[in-house]
Formats: sequence, C-alpha cells, structure tokens
Amino acid sequence: MNAQSLARACVNEMLKDDACSAALGMEVMEIDKRRASVRMVVRSDMVNGHGLCHGGMIFSLADSTFAFACNSENHSSVAAAGQIDFLAPAKLNDELTATATVIHQGKRKGLYDVTVVNQMQDQIAIFRGHSHRLGLPTIPNR
Amino acid sequence: MNAQSLARACVNEMLKDDACSAALGMEVMEIDKRRASVRMVVRSDMVNGHGLCHGGMIFSLADSTFAFACNSENHSSVAAAGQIDFLAPAKLNDELTATATVIHQGKRKGLYDVTVVNQMQDQIAIFRGHSHRLGLPTIPNR
Amino acid sequence: MNAQSLARACVNEMLKDDACSAALGMEVMEIDKRRASVRMVVRSDMVNGHGLCHGGMIFSLADSTFAFACNSENHSSVAAAGQIDFLAPAKLNDELTATATVIHQGKRKGLYDVTVVNQMQDQIAIFRGHSHRLGLPTIPNR
Amino acid sequence: MNAQSLARACVNEMLKDDACSAALGMEVMEIDKRRASVRMVVRSDMVNGHGLCHGGMIFSLADSTFAFACNSENHSSVAAAGQIDFLAPAKLNDELTATATVIHQGKRKGLYDVTVVNQMQDQIAIFRGHSHRLGLPTIPNR
Repeated sequence: MNAQSLARACVNEMLKDDACSAALGMEVMEIDKRRASVRMVVRSDMVNGHGLCHGGMIFSLADSTFAFACNSENHSSVAAAGQIDFLAPAKLNDELTATATVIHQGKRKGLYDVTVVNQMQDQIAIFRGHSHRLGLPTIPNR
Repeated sequence: MNAQSLARACVNEMLKDDACSAALGMEVMEIDKRRASVRMVVRSDMVNGHGLCHGGMIFSLADSTFAFACNSENHSSVAAAGQIDFLAPAKLNDELTATATVIHQGKRKGLYDVTVVNQMQDQIAIFRGHSHRLGLPTIPNR
Repeated sequence: MNAQSLARACVNEMLKDDACSAALGMEVMEIDKRRASVRMVVRSDMVNGHGLCHGGMIFSLADSTFAFACNSENHSSVAAAGQIDFLAPAKLNDELTATATVIHQGKRKGLYDVTVVNQMQDQIAIFRGHSHRLGLPTIPNR
Repeated sequence: MNAQSLARACVNEMLKDDACSAALGMEVMEIDKRRASVRMVVRSDMVNGHGLCHGGMIFSLADSTFAFACNSENHSSVAAAGQIDFLAPAKLNDELTATATVIHQGKRKGLYDVTVVNQMQDQIAIFRGHSHRLGLPTIPNR
C-alpha cells in the first residue's frame, strides 16, 4: 500500500466515527501523506451575531483538516493546540476549502499549517496546529 | 444603566442573530463588563473520530464566550485571532463551562483569556482571544 | 527541603551556566514552586530601530522567567513554544519585571503565563510558554 | 526606485539606530519586498543554563528578520505579537539564518512567517509575527 492509499484508509477509519465533521457537512477533497484538503459550505446554522460565519466553524474545518493530515501515516494523533488568524469574513453559503500541509513532524510532535479560502480563493483564515502522536495506530486492527 | 445591565443588553442583542451558538446549545450563565460565562453540553453530533468532543466545538464555546465578553461595553468587536491549548479530553454528555476574563483592552485591540472546565471542574482547555473593535455599537439603535 | 528552597536551588543551578541571562543583566527577585519573578533594565544595547526596547529582549526576559518557574521542581524542562503579545513599548532605562505563574503542569507538558510590567506597573507584554520535561533532574547530582 | 531598492533603503534606515540587532551580531543577507533573510552566530553569551542557545536569542533573530520584512515598503510597522516553536536546539557557534516571508498584508495588519535554520539546514524554529502599520513612513524624510 503506498503512502496515499494509507492516508486514505486512515481518513476513512476516522470518518467512520467522526459524527461532528459529518454534522458540519465536511467533505474530504484530497488526502495524501501529511496533507489533506476538506470542503465545507457555510450554512445558516453556522452564522453568528455579526451575520458572518462563526469563527468556531472555521476553526472546526481547519482542525478536522489538520487531524486528517497528521493521522495520515497510521499514527493516531490528537491536537494539543491550535492557533487561528481570521483574515477575512466568511458569509452564508460561502464554500470554504481548507488545505493542511506539514511544517514539522518529529517522533511524537507535529506542526501543520492550514489555509482556509473561499470560492473566490480569498484567504479567510490561517491555522497552525500542534499534534501529538499517542503511540497507537489510527487503524486499530490493520 | 449600569455596566452589568449594559453587558446583558449587548449579549441579548448578539444572541438574537447568533444561530450558531443557539444550534450548539450554548447557554449564557453570567455576563458582566469584560466578563462572560457560557455552558454547553457535549452532544453526540459533537464527537470526533477519537470518540471525544471535537476540538472545534470546544473552540466554538470559548470563542462565543470571548465574543460576549469583548462586546460587553457596546463596542462591536470581532475576533482577530485565537489560540487554544487542549489540556484534557471532553467526553459525550460532559457539561462544559467557559469563563472569559479580560487581560488587556485598549482603544481598539483587546486580549481575553477563556478557561473551559467540565462538570468535575477539570481544566479542559485554555483559550486566548484577540479582539478588534470596529468603531460601531454592538446595539445599533440604542 | 521545602518547595521554595528546592526552587531556589534549581534556579541557582541554572544560573551557574546561564551566560545569556547574565549578559542581559537579569536579576531573580522571587522564586517559588512553579513561580518566578525576574528584573531587567533596558540598556542602550537593547534598543531597536524604533528607539524602543527590542521585542526579542522582552521575550528573553519572559522566557528566562518561564524557564525558572518550570524548572522549579527539579524536573529539567525546556521551552517547546512561546507566544508573546506586546501591549505597550518599553523604553531605554525602563525597569522591567516579569512574573511567571503556572496554568497547567502535567507529567511532561506545562503551560505558564508571564506578565511583564515596567516600573510604573504598566503592562508591557504578556507571554505564554509551553514547556516539556526531559525526564532528568535540573540539579544533576543531588 | 524599485521594490528591492526601497526595501534595502528601509532596512538601512532601521539599522542606523538598531543597537540591539548590531549587539547580537546580526547580518542582513537578503532583503526584498515583504521578505528578508538575516544571519547570526550563536556566541558564548547567548547560551543558557542547558548549554544551548537561549530561546530569546532565536526569537530576537526571527523578530528582527520579521521587522525588516514588514517595514520593507516604507510603512513603519511594529510587532504586535509573535509565536515561536522551537524544533531543535541551536548550539554554541552555530550559524543561524532566519528567512521571513509574508502570509498576509492588509492595510494595517500583517502576518509574516519566519523559518530559522542552522548551517546544516536543520530547522531550528518557526516563528509567526503579527505586525501593525503605524501610518508613518519607515524612512522619515524621503
């Protein structure tokens, strides 16, 4: 099994139980070793008091994308920390795409950057995630 | 109108349109000048592939609490950035309470810290938010 | 040996070899379990192109204070990451005092907050440090 | 004057008064619009209690490089915040090179990433800086 197939198997394993990403309508567009791309449409239940997409929804998209990237080598990994900068507002019905790439992956600790753009390719947010490998496989009985 | 009544009026104004915080079942417990406390129960649609509360949901709770605190003086404010550290996992049916306090509030820029605990008072996450005042009131026609 | 004496012994051990903190004129004012306070005067060689204290010098003061706090229990710890927010400028001859307190200390990972004030008690910067215990004592042959 | 010449003129203006970067032996290697590269050797007075380069010195190098990049268009800019992740230790006599690139530059707010490597091209640290334009030129009487 090559790196991309393994990455895809890991994401499929994660998606089986990931009720939250499903509830938010996330769709995995691309997956590869230490890399992932995920799409989400801003729904009416994701809008906040300013009439814009809630920052937590943008963070959720970035965080899931990060999770798929850092779990792509069958090392079960959790987010230890995340930082997000909001660069432009996202609006109702916007189609957001988050793309995660690796900055550093050590034995345990990983650093991944995620960029979120809308359908016009405007930069909506950037996210940096700190992951921690648990010492277990992402796919349990493989 | 005293500071706490103004804070409450600002939150009520925000909640009118905040479909996202409502959809996530958030409940404002306390509100005061530059301070807010919000409660959310971890539902089955908030759980991720690890069987734990999705980090984005914890961030959303912290981010809303931060928004209520930094809008509490009737200066419309948006989140410019947020950092979160995940200290312990939250599980299905956990009752999370986020409490926001001010670290610094300048003419435009604000810094607020949010602590998220569960029903056992275990520290689940800490969040630091950077706000930016837009130069408009939170309550438009007041 | 009580907690404060142990903390003092750990700092003394660290200071023996800490050429950098010495070169910057840092002076430890208080030390206790998971807590430290350090003073530094802004010298002419610490000023940047804006005529103000270089952000790196303020970070250095905060980082040393953090290091003393997270090494105070004789667990050798290193900084994994640090975030700093600059709230007000520091000027030539200002006397800066940094105070570190613990936010979270797990088996390995620690989170400490540091506040930097000047001689007027104006908040100059806030810093959050992530530490990692190496599994060795701070004082080798104790 | 083209973008690179302007960037160089801005850096030269900043270096005239930047006693701190000079005291730390920093040498500007490359400068261009929203981009800079700076070199620094780890001296014996930059080493901390662990026998390694003090994190504050690595931050100082990254912060100066960031300052040169965000001031490169003759808009006087200050650092509002900085985050650094330490990926590998730097040792005495190591030659560190920091390279800053822009992530986002709005009317006022900028985001720049800085990577610090040693002479072996090992990644020592990554830094993200938040800048704020003051509404003044970097070169006063131009």
